Amino acid sequence: MLTMEKPAQTRDDLIDALLLKAEVDAFNARYCAALDSQRLADWAALFTEDAFYTIISRENHDRGLPVGLIYCENGGMIRDRAFALEKTAMFAPRYLRHMVSNLSVREAADGSFTANADYVVFQVLFDRPAATIHQVGRYDDVFVRTPSGLRLKSRTCIYDSLLVDNALCIPV
Amino acid sequence: MLTMEKPAQTRDDLIDALLLKAEVDAFNARYCAALDSQRLADWAALFTEDAFYTIISRENHDRGLPVGLIYCENGGMIRDRAFALEKTAMFAPRYLRHMVSNLSVREAADGSFTANADYVVFQVLFDRPAATIHQVGRYDDVFVRTPSGLRLKSRTCIYDSLLVDNALCIPV
Amino acid sequence: MLTMEKPAQTRDDLIDALLLKAEVDAFNARYCAALDSQRLADWAALFTEDAFYTIISRENHDRGLPVGLIYCENGGMIRDRAFALEKTAMFAPRYLRHMVSNLSVREAADGSFTANADYVVFQVLFDRPAATIHQVGRYDDVFVRTPSGLRLKSRTCIYDSLLVDNALCIPV
Repeated sequence: MLTMEKPAQTRDDLIDALLLKAEVDAFNARYCAALDSQRLADWAALFTEDAFYTIISRENHDRGLPVGLIYCENGGMIRDRAFALEKTAMFAPRYLRHMVSNLSVREAADGSFTANADYVVFQVLFDRPAATIHQVGRYDDVFVRTPSGLRLKSRTCIYDSLLVDNALCIPV
Repeated sequence: MLTMEKPAQTRDDLIDALLLKAEVDAFNARYCAALDSQRLADWAALFTEDAFYTIISRENHDRGLPVGLIYCENGGMIRDRAFALEKTAMFAPRYLRHMVSNLSVREAADGSFTANADYVVFQVLFDRPAATIHQVGRYDDVFVRTPSGLRLKSRTCIYDSLLVDNALCIPV
Repeated sequence: MLTMEKPAQTRDDLIDALLLKAEVDAFNARYCAALDSQRLADWAALFTEDAFYTIISRENHDRGLPVGLIYCENGGMIRDRAFALEKTAMFAPRYLRHMVSNLSVREAADGSFTANADYVVFQVLFDRPAATIHQVGRYDDVFVRTPSGLRLKSRTCIYDSLLVDNALCIPV
């Protein structure tokens, strides 16, 4: 059946929904810019302390299998991942470029809200200069509002590709 | 000559235009999600009973030639297409991912409104695991408001590619 | 450090920021449509008389090197480029399709405002019919408001690709 959001009642409700969506859109722009300019500590700061972050294949996700390319159960694991990538990891230098589309946001009863969006990550490897499609998929998110603004309580990146190329280590 | 929308006069007009655009944007997100998760009956339900849906090459469209890959003249033909794809058609299994950008919306005098947006459809074939570009093009739309929300009265998908790959049967 | 916009104080401020962002979004849609339908004089008309327009590699940009694929220091040079491409330049016929994402807009004290967005340009060459990625990059913009609406005072297109394909002459 077609899932249909319950229509907001008043014009003010519609404007509030639009402002919330704009806030998530701005959050995603900041998130993508942090990753694309390789400011991974900034990326990690966009999650809550109890955040869950995972990158999982659509195949596994659809079957309820939790195994993912990256699996972080809290903010510490996310910062660890960022630190490792910035300071210790070995991988071919590259440029990344995230694009996001089809954002939708739904408020939950507990003050948090869920969001979905489609993403594509383009990649330019320094030794193979044409841009290629690194990953295509969908964000499945839970956001919370904190004193410092929106933060991700959970982001599941569900990617369509069946083959994982040589860059599995990189957050999307 | 540069086509320029007539600027709305008041701040309330601007807000109304923005709310309308947000509604179309949300519609497109729902539309893409229905196709990408292969809920084709849900996709068909997004059209009016007298809807027109076609996928046509930019080459033919620019020359006024109506021949398209898919050509549906009413809701029944659209549901037929959805049913055939879900129940009877044979084609290689794949994941699709739609992304939309550059949405613009213009109100018409009769209460309907027209919209345009650019789209790209990425595809992952189960036996060729890298994501590729399935189709790039532009939506040319007419929307109407119904008791169940916005519906497409007409969507023309004008694709840039000159070659049609092995998946012509799939709506975009 | 994570760059964070100062949050606007009132609901009206937030709505104003959203209206401004929507205006830039509409501008970009018009800009992309002009280029994708090869109305280059319309494209040139979207810049101010003192506008700066350049396409530069991310590599050069990050090192502060100004050399770019296209380098225009004022409206006359931009119109020249448009005229040359429409009337005299020789290059393989192709379709282009721009998509834009992650738009962010910040107001400056002098009434102008800056914006950023990520872009991808898809290309279909008439003799190689599959769509390919022509260029991926980021717009770095300064806008001003004129009696005819928003205009670009400066657009720097910073592209990720390291190799320039055979179409360097085309604005993005």
